Amino acid sequence: MELKKIGDVNFIEGGVCASKGFRANGIQCGLAHKPLTDTEKNSAESNNALPSAKKKNDLALIVADKDCTAAAVYTTNKVKGAPIIVTKKHLENGIARAVIVNSVNANTCNPDGVEKANKMCELTANQLGISVDDVIVASTGVIGQVLPIEPIANGMKELADGLSYDGNKRALEAIMTTDTREKEIALEFTVGGKVCTMGGMLKGSGMIHPNMATTLTFITTDADISAELLQRALSDVVKVTLNRASVDGDTSTNDMVCIMASGTAGNKPVTHEDEDFESFENALYNIMMNLARMMARDGEGATKLIECAVSGAETEKIAETVAKSVITSSLFKAAMFGEDANWGRILCAIGYADADFDINKVDVKIASKNGCIHVCENGAGVEFSEEKAKDVLAEDEIQIIISLGDGAGTAVAWGCDLTYDYVKINGDYRS
Amino acid sequence: MELKKIGDVNFIEGGVCASKGFRANGIQCGLAHKPLTDTEKNSAESNNALPSAKKKNDLALIVADKDCTAAAVYTTNKVKGAPIIVTKKHLENGIARAVIVNSVNANTCNPDGVEKANKMCELTANQLGISVDDVIVASTGVIGQVLPIEPIANGMKELADGLSYDGNKRALEAIMTTDTREKEIALEFTVGGKVCTMGGMLKGSGMIHPNMATTLTFITTDADISAELLQRALSDVVKVTLNRASVDGDTSTNDMVCIMASGTAGNKPVTHEDEDFESFENALYNIMMNLARMMARDGEGATKLIECAVSGAETEKIAETVAKSVITSSLFKAAMFGEDANWGRILCAIGYADADFDINKVDVKIASKNGCIHVCENGAGVEFSEEKAKDVLAEDEIQIIISLGDGAGTAVAWGCDLTYDYVKINGDYRS
Repeated sequence: MELKKIGDVNFIEGGVCASKGFRANGIQCGLAHKPLTDTEKNSAESNNALPSAKKKNDLALIVADKDCTAAAVYTTNKVKGAPIIVTKKHLENGIARAVIVNSVNANTCNPDGVEKANKMCELTANQLGISVDDVIVASTGVIGQVLPIEPIANGMKELADGLSYDGNKRALEAIMTTDTREKEIALEFTVGGKVCTMGGMLKGSGMIHPNMATTLTFITTDADISAELLQRALSDVVKVTLNRASVDGDTSTNDMVCIMASGTAGNKPVTHEDEDFESFENALYNIMMNLARMMARDGEGATKLIECAVSGAETEKIAETVAKSVITSSLFKAAMFGEDANWGRILCAIGYADADFDINKVDVKIASKNGCIHVCENGAGVEFSEEKAKDVLAEDEIQIIISLGDGAGTAVAWGCDLTYDYVKINGDYRS
Repeated sequence: MELKKIGDVNFIEGGVCASKGFRANGIQCGLAHKPLTDTEKNSAESNNALPSAKKKNDLALIVADKDCTAAAVYTTNKVKGAPIIVTKKHLENGIARAVIVNSVNANTCNPDGVEKANKMCELTANQLGISVDDVIVASTGVIGQVLPIEPIANGMKELADGLSYDGNKRALEAIMTTDTREKEIALEFTVGGKVCTMGGMLKGSGMIHPNMATTLTFITTDADISAELLQRALSDVVKVTLNRASVDGDTSTNDMVCIMASGTAGNKPVTHEDEDFESFENALYNIMMNLARMMARDGEGATKLIECAVSGAETEKIAETVAKSVITSSLFKAAMFGEDANWGRILCAIGYADADFDINKVDVKIASKNGCIHVCENGAGVEFSEEKAKDVLAEDEIQIIISLGDGAGTAVAWGCDLTYDYVKINGDYRS
């Protein structure tokens, strides 16, 4: 997937380790649902490898060389995973040093979740010799099951020993679940003349043993920025990136995005909403917008990334409401899977968006690398070539371009098509 | 599907013709997408029948023997089909005599929709010798295409000539599209000691050449009730029946429900919100609640009816919001298709409902004819037998029973599972 670039940033290779002074690692500590059978164990031993189905890392660690300012944004779901409760407390002072994450088990809606999340932080702090309050903890997986702490405790030394300045892929693997693509990104940007680096990774959407389409995002930077402004930038950017991406409209109990800034780049600290803050926020936008696009593209069963750009709205809020209404319409999503230029469904989804505008001024185009078709003008259909439409829709990145003809508000939202595989992945039994 | 009965009503056979003094008919006037090929025509002639794929009625007429009070509720979509604009005008005086409906073409988002909708009323009025203002018009089908009026004009005499007091099935067939089951119902109830009758039919959801999951509902009664109270009853009941049923969350441009009351039952006219009004409203609730259940059960590709009953909410609004959040969750709907007692997804959908309540008091049960499993108590999982869960979920009518433990507000919402066939039906090309 091609990265989209807004403003003055320079994409580079890597992820969370691209920023100076961040090490990472990922291991398989053994949080698999089912214990290995004897045959599997023997086969694993003789091959010096675990059977492929069991081979995935399930525990990740990211560690900064020094204390970082840190910020996070959490799920708005009333059901909140235990790790979120613990992380929130640890980030009250805006300082963090490490992130510990497991997949397979979400450690949510069980009797001792908070205790176990605290234990994960304690194990990490002890191993690294840092304060327990400086550990961010996250989990993703099946909810309602007790998290076995032994595999994590037993694996902690190996996890810490393997930390390296290029361990980002191992960490990334450990947080992936039904993800079919690695989602990480890094870039350089300048703050007051100094080159800074930022990198991130994202996990979404879904579980091999499906339960929650959790999104976890971890971002690092070596820029120097106050905890307050770091939080402001993150809160601002989440609103226009991850909060505008949807695979199926479900909001998980464990969603979390967090960022750590080490300050090792040596820029003049960002402490006010000035030009430097803008540069920082733009870098963060480029990271998170592209991660949001990767997440939508890798939506469960998805074959296409759908980008809906709305302009001409009286307010940004109206543009956002309309864009999200379109990308979450099941009828529209199924039509995209069928590569059917069914603009009636787009207009219908625009029409039921809970926002104020004049439907008789609405203009709709469908575009991709293969061209652009104009399908609706002033709220009524326009004749177009079905052959060209087929060609446009054959691509795997589709833009829906809507103008409301009402003002200057704009918004972009990202989604994917609705496919047989979505039903298959999510209709399967948990075990 | 078993009918649900609330209060004092008596279900009888039939639909819109069950009420005294209502005739109906349905014909194939020829609004098919593609003209018949010569081979098809020959085959049709030699068999004295149209080829089976073309055989469906596409034009329906319901006529009352005398003027009726009438009321309607329309789609809230900003894109409104031309027939809705015309019907609204005709019902301003609260009087109607006939309903004309076509399928195949929605007569919406095209240059001359209102003109054509007016023409349909005019043709009907002329044929029947009634006032054009007393005709209700509706269309369902592909939007954005010009409605050919000739087939309707040519078929009008045959349509009127075939009207009969038992023509409800022919009319019903004419409004069906991807519907796989006939959805009609009739019942008797008493108003001030007089036995009255009410009957209805519903079309939903989807198109053979899919475009809009339109719902059309037509109800007749021989009770005597003022236009004002008829409208009040209909508006009240729609809120707690059709507005709580969802197949895919999409709201069509052409949705309409209308009712005609002839008064031939001879009851003391219902003109105040008294006991008689309550009896009437309860009858209407039984009609529309059961039609809503039939619609959800017959959702595109659906294999199961899902009923979500929420109680213990601080307000009815909160109960409704939670119930709708559950039945519209794609993750939950896919789990129901997989017969997976994935209560985490139910709790998750409850958690992201935009309503105020304490998630730690939430209680969830899953039930069907085969029994009941308690899956969540005080917001946390409860152990249950997976074997029993499988048994409960094997049924094709599933109840999700949620208590919020917060008050006396209750609401029921209806939905269906999300299946491969939903994607197939809606991902197919329009032609």
